Amino acid sequence: MKIFIKLRFLGTDFSGYQVQKNARTVQGELCRAAEELFGFRCDVTGCSRTDSGVHANMFCAAISGRDRALETTIPMDKFPRVFNSFLPDDVAVYEAKWVCDEFHPRYDVKYKEYIYKINCSYERDPFEAGRAFMYPYVFSDADIERMRRAAKHLEGTHDFSSYMAQGSAPESTVRTIFYTDVLYDGKNLVFKIAGDGFLYNMVRIIVGTLLSVARGKTDPDDIPLITEAHDRSRAGITVRADGLYLNYVEYDGKDK
Amino acid sequence: MKIFIKLRFLGTDFSGYQVQKNARTVQGELCRAAEELFGFRCDVTGCSRTDSGVHANMFCAAISGRDRALETTIPMDKFPRVFNSFLPDDVAVYEAKWVCDEFHPRYDVKYKEYIYKINCSYERDPFEAGRAFMYPYVFSDADIERMRRAAKHLEGTHDFSSYMAQGSAPESTVRTIFYTDVLYDGKNLVFKIAGDGFLYNMVRIIVGTLLSVARGKTDPDDIPLITEAHDRSRAGITVRADGLYLNYVEYDGKDK
Repeated sequence: MKIFIKLRFLGTDFSGYQVQKNARTVQGELCRAAEELFGFRCDVTGCSRTDSGVHANMFCAAISGRDRALETTIPMDKFPRVFNSFLPDDVAVYEAKWVCDEFHPRYDVKYKEYIYKINCSYERDPFEAGRAFMYPYVFSDADIERMRRAAKHLEGTHDFSSYMAQGSAPESTVRTIFYTDVLYDGKNLVFKIAGDGFLYNMVRIIVGTLLSVARGKTDPDDIPLITEAHDRSRAGITVRADGLYLNYVEYDGKDK
Repeated sequence: MKIFIKLRFLGTDFSGYQVQKNARTVQGELCRAAEELFGFRCDVTGCSRTDSGVHANMFCAAISGRDRALETTIPMDKFPRVFNSFLPDDVAVYEAKWVCDEFHPRYDVKYKEYIYKINCSYERDPFEAGRAFMYPYVFSDADIERMRRAAKHLEGTHDFSSYMAQGSAPESTVRTIFYTDVLYDGKNLVFKIAGDGFLYNMVRIIVGTLLSVARGKTDPDDIPLITEAHDRSRAGITVRADGLYLNYVEYDGKDK
């Protein structure tokens, strides 16, 4: 059996999720905490790799023993509180349960929802630094409508290689986007996107492209052409990691 | 003439407001920014000293030239944006105007409002770390009512030496509290207090005392006795700086 955990983290001081030598990572902290708590080597597998500076309102992972089965008498409803006492302030588990060994936190994902927060105010807010992309600009309703229209073109199953950072070589660049949404209150712009998977930097390149649409530099109905070009240079810039949050992860039921 | 500024800062990485040797302070950053912008030595006077880790949703200060009069052609409505380009992410000016040399940002304060944020959830929130006091406890309506009743006893003009940290020796320990308030939504507790001035650590000691009342360890109607004792040992603990925010500053009109 593995322990399935749901957690939140502030990405600012992490070099992303995945363990790296000489860098502070979320996986590194989770592994260390598990080994301190259980007293033997543990493996922690996450639902996703996230870049340096990216945050998570919900992130899922599974803890298993490396050389021996995990066992504990700690009731799972108390596990988050106990486990958090081994974790630093910027990461915290809020739910835990036992799952079977066959469950895989990455392969069994049905869809993941990311949000990207943009602070459009000309008043710089010290409390938002590192937690939103600072983009001082007043968008009109028509700008936001164009952005929504452009985003709709991304829904469905497509080859998203135009929105993939150079240097990565996944087996397939085809992904399915289930929904997108653009919320704007005159100060905060939130872009929401859910899909069965995302290529390297895909959400950040999509946001860069949609901002170009909102600013009137790209026509919303050019999005299908950009997508079909399979050419990174046709899409917009990669926006900063600061505004990106993994917001929700849905499983196909094997976690139940 | 001086330039009067309103600003916000996240206190986490500052050793308080006031300049100190070998420490990063808000005043230090403001002075450096002013000197870089104007090209000569400047003085920056704040409305208050704040401790390490204390935040400000509103803080006021005045910039003046040290050896010569301040002059600039930058319009005051554009000054915050220009000045912020010399400031780090965790401090930002949002308003500026010219005031006469007689104006003093500390002595001319009519009242200051502080808020103290307490996160009462058992779910630790990485996004709130350093920005609220983590105090996992479920308060009942009666607990909150007792806290409100205790806070009311602090309103008015009193000698607050029971709520002053050891080691400070102000000319007078008499202060006037204009209003207090306790807000609670089942997860976040916010204590609000406004006064003509505050002794060293006064708000943090008052909050520690009110938490003791809320927990039923101190009777709300014992507050006048604690106040009249003029004895620090009678009041509660000094709670962490994390939850404290200078929230609002009102002047007596000379800033107009």
